[in-house]
Amino acid sequence: MRYKAKVEVSLKKGYYDPEGETIKNSLLDLKYSVDEVRASKLFHITLEADSLESARSEVEEMSQRLLSNPVKDNYRIEIEEIE
Amino acid sequence: MRYKAKVEVSLKKGYYDPEGETIKNSLLDLKYSVDEVRASKLFHITLEADSLESARSEVEEMSQRLLSNPVKDNYRIEIEEIE
Repeated sequence: MRYKAKVEVSLKKGYYDPEGETIKNSLLDLKYSVDEVRASKLFHITLEADSLESARSEVEEMSQRLLSNPVKDNYRIEIEEIE
Repeated sequence: MRYKAKVEVSLKKGYYDPEGETIKNSLLDLKYSVDEVRASKLFHITLEADSLESARSEVEEMSQRLLSNPVKDNYRIEIEEIE
């Protein structure tokens, strides 16, 4: 079966986010009233697996091994079956 | 009032996504059965506005002026009021 996963990888609280900070400053220069901007990555992954459970555990493993750095990143997974 | 917006900026269909492609190839090397990987950016923005409508239209404007490139990117906005 085929599954579609979304993995969001974001910096843990307390880590400085230079991209978010730069965008916040640009938005303030453009006169928008923003308080905070945090930038994160989102990966849309289509994969084959035998069940939702095994798809989830594969994506969990990918997130830990490749998509995130466990020292500084959090990740959040959403997954669903497709046709 | 304060609002929290999420803006996802992704490449339009047909645009080559080198980051997604590189990750897909790494995942295949690691023996995961992935069909496709697309990478996008997600911005979490906290802002002040008078109403949900005006918050939404500000974020719409930010997305067009700064966060995305209308030639090659799509953007998708989710917004909600916070305390």
